[in-house]
Amino acid sequence: MDKISDVTIADCEKSTYIKPLRLTYQQNGIKKIWDAMKVHDSVVILIYNVTRHVLVFVKQFRPAVYLCSSKVSEVEGQRVIKHEENPPNLGLTYELCAGIVDKDTSLEQIAQGEVLEECGYKVPLDKLERMCSCRGGVGTSGALQTMYFAEVTDAMRVSQGGGVEEEGEMIDVVDIPVSEAMDFVMDDNVNKPVGMMFAVLWFFQHKNKHYSSKI
Amino acid sequence: MDKISDVTIADCEKSTYIKPLRLTYQQNGIKKIWDAMKVHDSVVILIYNVTRHVLVFVKQFRPAVYLCSSKVSEVEGQRVIKHEENPPNLGLTYELCAGIVDKDTSLEQIAQGEVLEECGYKVPLDKLERMCSCRGGVGTSGALQTMYFAEVTDAMRVSQGGGVEEEGEMIDVVDIPVSEAMDFVMDDNVNKPVGMMFAVLWFFQHKNKHYSSKI
Repeated sequence: MDKISDVTIADCEKSTYIKPLRLTYQQNGIKKIWDAMKVHDSVVILIYNVTRHVLVFVKQFRPAVYLCSSKVSEVEGQRVIKHEENPPNLGLTYELCAGIVDKDTSLEQIAQGEVLEECGYKVPLDKLERMCSCRGGVGTSGALQTMYFAEVTDAMRVSQGGGVEEEGEMIDVVDIPVSEAMDFVMDDNVNKPVGMMFAVLWFFQHKNKHYSSKI
Repeated sequence: MDKISDVTIADCEKSTYIKPLRLTYQQNGIKKIWDAMKVHDSVVILIYNVTRHVLVFVKQFRPAVYLCSSKVSEVEGQRVIKHEENPPNLGLTYELCAGIVDKDTSLEQIAQGEVLEECGYKVPLDKLERMCSCRGGVGTSGALQTMYFAEVTDAMRVSQGGGVEEEGEMIDVVDIPVSEAMDFVMDDNVNKPVGMMFAVLWFFQHKNKHYSSKI
């Protein structure tokens, strides 16, 4: 478990990461205004390790989730989250391996790179199967998310993964046996985005029978 | 199809809706900064009309999705999206009926209100079944989304729905026959958030057999 401390919150007049844009438009003759932000498209990958019949996820501390799950206090005029009262696992999430589309290569190559960086598997491109695409958000951001399924083996594991240290990523790789995956997904005590939940249900509908017949 | 025109884009120094917060914290002794925004928790509802064996969704124009899908041009120093070159259906999404948690009532009551406002069904509370919860986002926002399943009948339809006009909502109610729902969900030409896709797969795993045996 990561040790989280000294959490403070401040208004951020000019964020490098969150840059609102104002759209004005007419819809059926009525003038409207909507504030949105442009975010990168992304790829996410459901990884299935066929050697050990496990699904591979990433676990990490997500400040935004911690903020939404914690009680904010005021100490000497400053907003803080006391980690003694708000355990860090409030901000811990289980997610699919993922990355943003910020390189001029194919989506498959970006997905391949993320599987290696985050989870340590060197997966051949032909073991990456396109699942579908969806919108990452529809309110403030509307970027496209493309979902892949990657079949890996223990022999493809070349590192421990964990993300790019220079980028400050602190990611744990978590194996969940397929036999426990459905309970895991439907467990409300586990923080997870709905994309991960969709991918697991998709696996059970499209893949699990195929693999079950082989083990 | 909604008529969309006169789309302009401008930087928005101070948005009422998108207010970045800066979190500073220590993770395993390393000082970190993360910009996030606090957004409302929400409820989403998968509606199944048992009379006609259809799933009920909402369709609407989403400016953020349109922005991400369109080519932005510059005309006389102003950023615009030309609707002649970027058809409005680029921003059209199919979603679950949904609402934010901004009232001091139960989640079920908020869900009940949204089903009525957006889709026109007066659904009794005991026909709302809690499905699960998830995180709406994990990067910049981490709010909790609680998902419900609502069984409705034609007799419960008391209005056309469409959202609250005073709030500027322009929502179409769309029925998708259960027999077509899986193809609809996996169709990449249809813009939709992954929460809607998850809900439909959940329906097929948990509900459809039960109903199929009755029709």
